[in-house]
Amino acid sequence: MLGDEATSLYIISAGILGLVFGIYNIMMLTRVPVGEAGNYHRNDPRYLKDIIGVKTERVQRTNKRTGEVEWIEEEAGLYHENWDQVVYTLTRISQAVSDGARAFLMEEYKILTVFIVIFSVIIAVLVEEELGQFWTVFAFVLGATTSIASGYIGMRVAVFSNSRCAYSAINRENGLANAFIVAFRGGAVLGFVLTSLGLLNLLMLIWLYTTIYLGEEYDNEDIRHMYECIAGYGLGGSTIAMFGRVGGGIFTKAADVGADLAGKVEEGLEEDDPRNAATIADNVGDNVGDIAGMGSDLFGSFAESTCAALVVAATSVELNSTMCSLLYPLLISATGIAVSFVTSFFATNVMKVDSEDKIEKTLKYQLVISTVLLTPALYFLTLYVLPEDFTFIRGDEVIQSKNTYAFICLAFGLWSGLIIGYVTEYFTSYAYTPVKEVAESCRTGAATDIIYGLALGYLSCIIPTICLAVTIYVAFYFASMYGIALAALGMLSNLALALAIDGYGPISDNAGGMVEMIHLKKEVRQRTDALDAAGNTTAAIGKGFAIGSAALVSLALFGAFITRSNMTEVNILAPLQFAGLLVGAMLPYAFSAFTMKSVGKAANQMVIEVRRQFQEMKRNPHYAPEYEKCVQISTRAALKEMILPGMMVMLTPIITGWLFGPRAVAGLLAGILVSGVQMATSSANAGGAWDNAKKYIEKESLVPKSSPQFKDIKAAAVTGDTVGDPMKDTSGPSLNILVKLSAILSLVFGGFFASDWGGILIS
Amino acid sequence: MLGDEATSLYIISAGILGLVFGIYNIMMLTRVPVGEAGNYHRNDPRYLKDIIGVKTERVQRTNKRTGEVEWIEEEAGLYHENWDQVVYTLTRISQAVSDGARAFLMEEYKILTVFIVIFSVIIAVLVEEELGQFWTVFAFVLGATTSIASGYIGMRVAVFSNSRCAYSAINRENGLANAFIVAFRGGAVLGFVLTSLGLLNLLMLIWLYTTIYLGEEYDNEDIRHMYECIAGYGLGGSTIAMFGRVGGGIFTKAADVGADLAGKVEEGLEEDDPRNAATIADNVGDNVGDIAGMGSDLFGSFAESTCAALVVAATSVELNSTMCSLLYPLLISATGIAVSFVTSFFATNVMKVDSEDKIEKTLKYQLVISTVLLTPALYFLTLYVLPEDFTFIRGDEVIQSKNTYAFICLAFGLWSGLIIGYVTEYFTSYAYTPVKEVAESCRTGAATDIIYGLALGYLSCIIPTICLAVTIYVAFYFASMYGIALAALGMLSNLALALAIDGYGPISDNAGGMVEMIHLKKEVRQRTDALDAAGNTTAAIGKGFAIGSAALVSLALFGAFITRSNMTEVNILAPLQFAGLLVGAMLPYAFSAFTMKSVGKAANQMVIEVRRQFQEMKRNPHYAPEYEKCVQISTRAALKEMILPGMMVMLTPIITGWLFGPRAVAGLLAGILVSGVQMATSSANAGGAWDNAKKYIEKESLVPKSSPQFKDIKAAAVTGDTVGDPMKDTSGPSLNILVKLSAILSLVFGGFFASDWGGILIS
Repeated sequence: MLGDEATSLYIISAGILGLVFGIYNIMMLTRVPVGEAGNYHRNDPRYLKDIIGVKTERVQRTNKRTGEVEWIEEEAGLYHENWDQVVYTLTRISQAVSDGARAFLMEEYKILTVFIVIFSVIIAVLVEEELGQFWTVFAFVLGATTSIASGYIGMRVAVFSNSRCAYSAINRENGLANAFIVAFRGGAVLGFVLTSLGLLNLLMLIWLYTTIYLGEEYDNEDIRHMYECIAGYGLGGSTIAMFGRVGGGIFTKAADVGADLAGKVEEGLEEDDPRNAATIADNVGDNVGDIAGMGSDLFGSFAESTCAALVVAATSVELNSTMCSLLYPLLISATGIAVSFVTSFFATNVMKVDSEDKIEKTLKYQLVISTVLLTPALYFLTLYVLPEDFTFIRGDEVIQSKNTYAFICLAFGLWSGLIIGYVTEYFTSYAYTPVKEVAESCRTGAATDIIYGLALGYLSCIIPTICLAVTIYVAFYFASMYGIALAALGMLSNLALALAIDGYGPISDNAGGMVEMIHLKKEVRQRTDALDAAGNTTAAIGKGFAIGSAALVSLALFGAFITRSNMTEVNILAPLQFAGLLVGAMLPYAFSAFTMKSVGKAANQMVIEVRRQFQEMKRNPHYAPEYEKCVQISTRAALKEMILPGMMVMLTPIITGWLFGPRAVAGLLAGILVSGVQMATSSANAGGAWDNAKKYIEKESLVPKSSPQFKDIKAAAVTGDTVGDPMKDTSGPSLNILVKLSAILSLVFGGFFASDWGGILIS
Repeated sequence: MLGDEATSLYIISAGILGLVFGIYNIMMLTRVPVGEAGNYHRNDPRYLKDIIGVKTERVQRTNKRTGEVEWIEEEAGLYHENWDQVVYTLTRISQAVSDGARAFLMEEYKILTVFIVIFSVIIAVLVEEELGQFWTVFAFVLGATTSIASGYIGMRVAVFSNSRCAYSAINRENGLANAFIVAFRGGAVLGFVLTSLGLLNLLMLIWLYTTIYLGEEYDNEDIRHMYECIAGYGLGGSTIAMFGRVGGGIFTKAADVGADLAGKVEEGLEEDDPRNAATIADNVGDNVGDIAGMGSDLFGSFAESTCAALVVAATSVELNSTMCSLLYPLLISATGIAVSFVTSFFATNVMKVDSEDKIEKTLKYQLVISTVLLTPALYFLTLYVLPEDFTFIRGDEVIQSKNTYAFICLAFGLWSGLIIGYVTEYFTSYAYTPVKEVAESCRTGAATDIIYGLALGYLSCIIPTICLAVTIYVAFYFASMYGIALAALGMLSNLALALAIDGYGPISDNAGGMVEMIHLKKEVRQRTDALDAAGNTTAAIGKGFAIGSAALVSLALFGAFITRSNMTEVNILAPLQFAGLLVGAMLPYAFSAFTMKSVGKAANQMVIEVRRQFQEMKRNPHYAPEYEKCVQISTRAALKEMILPGMMVMLTPIITGWLFGPRAVAGLLAGILVSGVQMATSSANAGGAWDNAKKYIEKESLVPKSSPQFKDIKAAAVTGDTVGDPMKDTSGPSLNILVKLSAILSLVFGGFFASDWGGILIS
């Protein structure tokens, strides 16, 4: 047993460790000199379009600013005037990307502020009085604000790292290793800062509520109510995450698809060619979609799974008896941060990424090592912290469990996460058969590419689903709904690293874009491409984690909702429940339809604008692309198009509960969950596979560039990649949030559904 | 109340009416003269390749064989030598298609015979003794045989009608109307013969079992067991349907995709260009996939929903008291045949299809008119036949119902079918916005075409799902599981017409192919194209029906399975059930993955062969395509590739029940059902929309053929169509059967799952 102070100390120490490590990584990043040029050009009168995208010739020059010039000169010599210029341009591009991302997020957050206010009112009206609506609203606002902060911090770190990653890639000898470390450190800042912030925030919230809400006298019922209020924190986090994912997803893919269609397909340009006006918007998109969206999303999962565990734990007398057993969920995450901290040194200091094939391996080993280290750590933690036997109350039932059982749930969650990661890698990396087959199928054109890719996505659902099913069965069996929440926490225990390797992707993608834009040597681009290809795979792995954890979290919340609605079972062989189940299974489809079409529409506008600029360019050789126009198009489209799907997600459970009561909601949630998981998994993996099949072909692994078929095969692959873009980065990831958000919404409004105001059509 | 003899007489009369009407339609078809040439060429030494595909010049000639030659001469003048030649060639092509289809089905049925034997043994071993395994096996074999017969008859009728439809389309004045009637009559033969056969067979089976199985003394339990044995009939039908759908689906799409890729995309040829070696295989495919597969599929639905209703009805004392109330499910279908018979005259004799826009309308009105007529007919039947009040027993519960309630269930099923049909039409016909949008999106290339099409497919799930959910809720509410079975029967009550308009599609598609192959005038092809475009929409409507009814049937069977397994509820908030639900929701994805990839692989082989023949043709101007090689490739691929997905479908429920018992199976079935419905609907509609978007573009509705963009836009549309092919004709339709088959398998093996041998891993 851990004393009360020791428990708090343990959690706070881990939180501070994470924050300090984040700052340490930022400091390490500032050592890359490109950032030094970061301030002098703010008022530079030249437009971005005047300084990039200029065709260059080979010039031999020495760098006058620093001492160690030899290699730099050789590499950067390809660039126009001098080394200063490289640094200068990189910084300017980074600034443009950063400005675009900042402008978009600011616009988005303005809308979200309005939304938070409105939704706070809804909560205040609909949540029952005895709970104290104020406390739910407060937790909601705090969760929303933290989520916004998470997204924003992630974006800032990423735009801080991308030019540094590009710069580091220039060096022929250590370029790959250095650039890798820069991108990884950037991701690590994101991972450690977000998880630590989330952890500390929750601890503070619990401390605050215990002191003020509970007061001096309280019973078990009060504790449960308190945690139901705290669930508002998860709701706030998830709501923002939803808009972040949907809005960011539409932004990034409108730009990406538009750039691909107008530039690659029609004009036959390379990715990130500076003449393509949508390239900057594309790079902005990576930061607002993949980074800010992903950050908010996983922050939401973390907050929700902790809330779910706390709500369920509150029904247990034994777990409530000591602070350490009650705060066990937070202790798990604290341990996760500590172990992730240790593991990260394997990536930065132990393993050296000196060849392309080591990139993916190093990232993957991060997950393996942390999983292996976490297993005993969590075992001892559990034995030390939890009472040997404990019980829960569900309806009239008393469920028995043990600390060893709790560990089994954790371990199944943790290891399923790893297996899901491995399976995802297998299906999305071009090192393995599936992606190679998809690439092969490009020989017969875009249609077979797409058929094979869709089939691959569907196929990739099998093992993750079975993993999840086994985990759910075992966790359920050993500790009922608490077990499910623990499994989710187990899967998320190395979240800091999952976020790090996930953030790594967009940073290296951006770096690749910059290298292309300033016309550095082909071999530099090859290095960033290799980093980026690994990034596609790790992005898919990250999505696999996000989906798997979303499923577990959602089920745990589902359990908490059932408890709250005073139901003891969900019998689907009853009219309301089954109808709910069927409609629920449809919602991921409806939601994907909206988001994919939004991307299509926005991409269409983008194509028209980019085409117009190409026409202009052909008429007038002095005309340079107006990048900011494309950023504006993406911004406007994303903000407009995120409203409808967002409303759909938010309102469906509430309206269902209002009209048909909690039993219909129970069916709905189960339907959304089981159908959403499949769709999210298949979309993410098909998209990742198409992207890497294209990379595989671009690497000339199928036919050499000189071959007459190369152009056609590549065009087919680009079409597949373009189709995959909205699937893997807009609709797919948004589905996780659909799954989680509908569950936590139901939990928070569970009291309303079960009240006289719920189910008005059937009572 | 209807007396026992009157009940039998009513059913038998309807069955005979259907059969006679089928024969009448065949006789009407034989009036089209092209068939007369049908026999003299069997031993003709010339190969098909020598007589079609020859470039022709305009020759003016009179037909020496018949009197009415004037118009024929004018139209057929485009063709090479004389009118005899047109008839001769049409017949030869029809023969080639027919031979290919026959050869494939024969090969398929050989494999299926082996399968039937093996599976009979499995049934004999696993079905519990007290039921008398023999009776289940007998019903299974009979169901399987009838299903085989249904598929075969359908194919024969279709290949009998296609050349006649092509011939009729030649006439400038009445060509459209005549060709329409021929195609519709062909479909009607299929529809009426299959439903009548199914009905009579079931009646005979019930009579036989009542006489022999029940004997003199029996109680209610015995009656229930008897119907559980008769459920073997549904299982037989569905099993064959599954292999028919999967095998036929792979055959047809391997040929179609292969032909499109090698011919249209690579060589820029038109659809059905005779130089394309895969054209005959493509036409064969329409007959074995869409016709034989669809026939078996809907026959299965019909048999299963009747069995499900009978099994549930057997638990009711009141319904068992008279023959007419017990056989009420059969009386519904009998009434359906009679009403469909009347309705069909609106298509053939009342409405005249003299312009293109009337085609779709006429077909659609068939459904509207029959639905409107069936509503009062079924109302009076129900009041007349069912006792005013009746009860069911489910577990310990007694469920009350009334005859008016039974009618409400029927009516909801019937009208939901119509709504689903309308929604499907809206999403797949180029008369409406959605397909026009998809066509528009081809302007920016294949990628946006596919993104829009996928989004359209997802979107199209919303209303059908809500329709089904409402129907399920209402039916469940009014008559529990019996209500669900009645809703399914209601939806299938105009099955004869649904099959007729469904069969219409491939017949007109084939006719179009023939017209192209013998180089008839462009306007003839325009007529057959218009017929074919309507066929795409009606095919999608048919699929909508098939999916909707499959969902209801499957739920009804699910209910029967629950009754049989002595469960009273399916609580998904329990480990086994939830794990089953999740895995179940994954199975449609796994299944689609296998089938789509099979098509991709087979199409690849096809492309290689067709390409080889094109090379040959370019080298040697006397070389004519070897059609039969392509037919062989499709045959081999289909037979090889259908085994794995087939086994998956058959074995998953059995193994799940064996290892984890009936509760896991219950979860599995619910998961398959809710996820499969969405996937089947979205696949069918996306595919239909892509196909018609292509047709819309080919009709020059977007840009004229002379426009410089036309080629690119069309290429994009062809890519979309090709992706849609396996979705709409292989994986999508096979999913219905996955949904139904897993449910009826569970019903038949329910006793085994609940026995000591079931659930060995968890007991």
